[in-house]
Amino acid sequence: MTNSEKSNQMANAIRFLSAEAVEKANSGHPGLPMGAADIATVLFTKFLKFDPKAPQWPDRDRFVLSAGHGSMLLYSLLYLTGYEDMTIEEIKNFRQLGSRTAGHPEYGHASGIETTTGPLGQGLGNSVGMALSERIMNAHFGNDLVNHHTYVIAGDGCLMEGISQEAIALAGHLKLNKLVVFWDHNNISIDGPVSLADNTDQRARFEASGWHTLEVDGHDQAAIAAAIEDAHKSDKPTMIACRTTIGFGAPTKAGTNKVHGSPLGAEELAGAKKALGWTAEPFVVPADILEAWRAAGQRSLKEHASWSNRLASVDAGMRAEFERRVAGDLPAGFEAAIIAYKKKLSEEKPKVATRKASEMALEVINGIVPETIGGSADLTGSNNTKTTQTKNITPEDYGQRYVHYGIREHGMAAAMNGIALHAGLIPYSGTFLTFSDYARGAMRLSCVMGIRVIYVMTHDSIGLGEDGPTHQPVEHLAALRAIPNNYVFRPADVVETAECWEIALKSRKRPSTLALTRQNLPTVRTEHVDENKCAYGAYELAAASGKAEVTIFATGSEVEIALAARDQLEANGHPTRVVSVPCFELFEEQSDDYKAKVLGDAPVKVAVEAAIRMGWDRFIGLDGIFIGMTGFGASGPIEELYKHFGITADAIVAAAEGKLK
Amino acid sequence: MTNSEKSNQMANAIRFLSAEAVEKANSGHPGLPMGAADIATVLFTKFLKFDPKAPQWPDRDRFVLSAGHGSMLLYSLLYLTGYEDMTIEEIKNFRQLGSRTAGHPEYGHASGIETTTGPLGQGLGNSVGMALSERIMNAHFGNDLVNHHTYVIAGDGCLMEGISQEAIALAGHLKLNKLVVFWDHNNISIDGPVSLADNTDQRARFEASGWHTLEVDGHDQAAIAAAIEDAHKSDKPTMIACRTTIGFGAPTKAGTNKVHGSPLGAEELAGAKKALGWTAEPFVVPADILEAWRAAGQRSLKEHASWSNRLASVDAGMRAEFERRVAGDLPAGFEAAIIAYKKKLSEEKPKVATRKASEMALEVINGIVPETIGGSADLTGSNNTKTTQTKNITPEDYGQRYVHYGIREHGMAAAMNGIALHAGLIPYSGTFLTFSDYARGAMRLSCVMGIRVIYVMTHDSIGLGEDGPTHQPVEHLAALRAIPNNYVFRPADVVETAECWEIALKSRKRPSTLALTRQNLPTVRTEHVDENKCAYGAYELAAASGKAEVTIFATGSEVEIALAARDQLEANGHPTRVVSVPCFELFEEQSDDYKAKVLGDAPVKVAVEAAIRMGWDRFIGLDGIFIGMTGFGASGPIEELYKHFGITADAIVAAAEGKLK
Repeated sequence: MTNSEKSNQMANAIRFLSAEAVEKANSGHPGLPMGAADIATVLFTKFLKFDPKAPQWPDRDRFVLSAGHGSMLLYSLLYLTGYEDMTIEEIKNFRQLGSRTAGHPEYGHASGIETTTGPLGQGLGNSVGMALSERIMNAHFGNDLVNHHTYVIAGDGCLMEGISQEAIALAGHLKLNKLVVFWDHNNISIDGPVSLADNTDQRARFEASGWHTLEVDGHDQAAIAAAIEDAHKSDKPTMIACRTTIGFGAPTKAGTNKVHGSPLGAEELAGAKKALGWTAEPFVVPADILEAWRAAGQRSLKEHASWSNRLASVDAGMRAEFERRVAGDLPAGFEAAIIAYKKKLSEEKPKVATRKASEMALEVINGIVPETIGGSADLTGSNNTKTTQTKNITPEDYGQRYVHYGIREHGMAAAMNGIALHAGLIPYSGTFLTFSDYARGAMRLSCVMGIRVIYVMTHDSIGLGEDGPTHQPVEHLAALRAIPNNYVFRPADVVETAECWEIALKSRKRPSTLALTRQNLPTVRTEHVDENKCAYGAYELAAASGKAEVTIFATGSEVEIALAARDQLEANGHPTRVVSVPCFELFEEQSDDYKAKVLGDAPVKVAVEAAIRMGWDRFIGLDGIFIGMTGFGASGPIEELYKHFGITADAIVAAAEGKLK
Repeated sequence: MTNSEKSNQMANAIRFLSAEAVEKANSGHPGLPMGAADIATVLFTKFLKFDPKAPQWPDRDRFVLSAGHGSMLLYSLLYLTGYEDMTIEEIKNFRQLGSRTAGHPEYGHASGIETTTGPLGQGLGNSVGMALSERIMNAHFGNDLVNHHTYVIAGDGCLMEGISQEAIALAGHLKLNKLVVFWDHNNISIDGPVSLADNTDQRARFEASGWHTLEVDGHDQAAIAAAIEDAHKSDKPTMIACRTTIGFGAPTKAGTNKVHGSPLGAEELAGAKKALGWTAEPFVVPADILEAWRAAGQRSLKEHASWSNRLASVDAGMRAEFERRVAGDLPAGFEAAIIAYKKKLSEEKPKVATRKASEMALEVINGIVPETIGGSADLTGSNNTKTTQTKNITPEDYGQRYVHYGIREHGMAAAMNGIALHAGLIPYSGTFLTFSDYARGAMRLSCVMGIRVIYVMTHDSIGLGEDGPTHQPVEHLAALRAIPNNYVFRPADVVETAECWEIALKSRKRPSTLALTRQNLPTVRTEHVDENKCAYGAYELAAASGKAEVTIFATGSEVEIALAARDQLEANGHPTRVVSVPCFELFEEQSDDYKAKVLGDAPVKVAVEAAIRMGWDRFIGLDGIFIGMTGFGASGPIEELYKHFGITADAIVAAAEGKLK
């Protein structure tokens, strides 16, 4: 070990702020911060480009603590380097309600938290999106404005999760050489030694996917620094295996799972302090050490200033465009273009699948919004996510706009989160709706963080036909609507699809999922209005001819069926209205008056959706009629399936008339 | 290529049955069956131990088509080798409603379909559980009764999915050397060449996780046979990279993504027949070729007979035990033991977390039911899944009963599916409830297949405290209840936990998820009854003192709160009943009379669950009071969180009394 006394003490500052905070909270994870303190000290004092006074500096390096349970490592770094909102009081309030210092790092709770981590492997997945964004933005705006690294600390748990393979393989494929992953290789997981469950040669595994790898003593700061310098020279992403001791310094618990997720205890903590020569009071960092840390926090000020000068001196148009994108504003003319496009659709009334309608909308959007980055988990032709503007992003040409994410739904969603978090780009990508199950861990984090990620989920019901129950979502609409903060859209035609896309793009603090059909649907919004009706979540699509006896609520492909049922019911003398419900969540955001009006007071209420009933009681009440699925689907041609499962206009009419009698 | 004319034509029989079936259905995937036909021919004619007349022969080799979209490969093999329920009519009815030949292989639709595949990577995950089961059962019953291989065909897509890494690493760790994976290495995925999204050196990757690997020309049957023989000698699991041409034989589309998922078309199909010298009519296999295939289907008859003899000659006790386990029956005395245990609990009234209650129940169960195989995704001490009977399964000792699955929720769930499918063992294992999101792809398949897999999901609400929103489930109960065929249990105390475990074990055709608390809960079922009350799904736990004005429905940790609210309401003169709702799904299975009685007619209905409202309207109606969560949780001590989110007895009382006024 060649660390200087001062650099040792700087690392110890992290160790003991962390251990004391965990001790005070009587809850938390001291093991990682104590084990990875040397890595973090080297990174933050010698390499990381950041400005605690300007945490949103667009060209800062990104630091992701993928092993989010070690949150005190990050909070300590933020405090030590001088982020103003990370006070020592916050450190003392670790894991207390309302503090910035939540159990796991929560995006938005404090400056310098680049992403929410804790669910393992997610940060690694995010980092791929961040590093890719850097390359894309670099290609668009040049080295002067965009030229930074993405650093990750990942633990053994991150690397065991399957999502890690998806992230690693994608990063290797895309040759994201400005991505550097520190593997906190402490050989310990919660149950005990990693060898209880894993014997993977991680370096060999990363190398198999095109990574550069290195191995160092994770407590030798000089070796860590040398490895980072080596990583910077590589034309591949780099994984630095850092052999560390979990809970470094703890006299009896270091190197064991006892130090992973529980306070050290007074005696062990005292022993660690003694072993490491730390004499300061709890939550006190000796002045010279704090000063050295604060100086590290000022390291990039010059670089920031010269970046600001460069930004000021680029072409005004480019500067405005860069600032617009980074701010997340949409280009001028976006709304007008959508309105014009909707008008055209209402006139032309195409009969297309909503997945095709989505492609058509994207063709308009991608022409106006240059920051969209499309993709698919190997279902490009099925998800209809590629437009004339989006050519493939490759290591040879990062300046394009389409990612072949591979058959990696989870890694894709996590990378999309990373792209959204990076700022400057708007990610959209897709798979089949049923495979949202594979991506759900990352989709939930889109919702927790409240970021603009757009999931294009096609083949949204039994309407996909022959592929059968494994591919036919029945519970997925309910399961996605269940996640707080999630906009789940199921548009009924081309016009609604355009409107849902408009909302998704404008929703800067919400992820959106578009559930889209494989099968063709008629245009039902044949009278143009400028107003975005889908923004109401639910609205009356067809009024009753008189005082309504029946209201039919429907979404997506079942709106056509609802309208056909309405025709029959009206012909039979039963005034019937149809309400299209493209988004439950937006409906709930409306005024009580509006909601009451849309729900109406027809004695018979019917909901029709080729999915399970869960969630629909809110519209139709317990005594309402639900026409949909009660179990899994089946393999067969679409027309037969709809009949087989009784999702037809005739079934609606029969049920409604049965109730009217 | 050294294949004989006959073995070529045997492979061609697969190719053209498959291609014709896809052509007739005008839907499906001809590319894989045509590409992997040689591999399958070698495996089924020379190696696979199976008996089409006794598809459930316990010691058969397992064959898993992980690349399930190539279902016609499997259906062709089943027809050709003489499975009686796979007639040529079924082949002709490929992908038609009601046929056995669904778009993707559906477990239970036809004999010889060992698992439902289609969602990529799942079959590979299942195979790990199957191969592990073989080793466990072998350790319990010896070579005479259990000694078989597990073979898998996996595609590029399977290997890109993250779940594959979890499966590979687990199999390598456990040294499952009777597992042989054929990688159908055709370099094509749906979007085009695999190189669009991946450059992983798969052999190196498998080797990094302790696999033996080989590479062959996947159309050279002799080379494939030699590789299988080599695999059989390895002390590691083996991956055979088979270089194949997707759509082998198709004159213009072979080797391209055009042949992956669409019919060849008449001209291309004719060209393929010409190229491969196939002259038979559609759906006709020349007599000599069919005869050769049928002979292959008889290859293992002698082996089956000698196995039956061995079974007949083992100790009667062992035979009975083997047959009981394979049949899936529980041991005699199981129910009585649960009743006795419940009686003890009602007397002792321990105050423990339901995760601890689950451990206590398991301690009883594992003592009586020797076929349970426990585990955890690296949260053993948190999930409380390990009992005194369950020692670690290791490559040196497969005869134990506990799997450290590693931080691999998805791979774990898929392996558990494989264990349940293998027969002879009952898998249970756990993680935190919030990380059911990571396992959901495989959990859905437990439900689709209807198999006895038991998920032990602890830390089931904000009640876990400081770990914060990423670890606090709020939508997961609803999202899991949404999956058809899924028993989701949320027991309220030790007694209910025992009852839920009893139901889970008795439910041979249903998976179960137990949602369990981290925090301690009092025993609320203090009066013993032999009857399993949880089997009703919902039942009156506390009656009102008079005609009920209020009914409070609650689950799990909120039952205690509901009872406290009842005390206050009763004291305030409002007769109040409390209904415990341990399982929505079981409640729906009850008679209408029972359901009406439990729902009752109290004017005020309240539901309390520390989760979102979705699904609860069914109990309380649209005008009911819901006390629970409306968004994500927060990091903080449990007591503060319950207050902060207003999930308290006081809140229930105030809301109920507000409504009563």
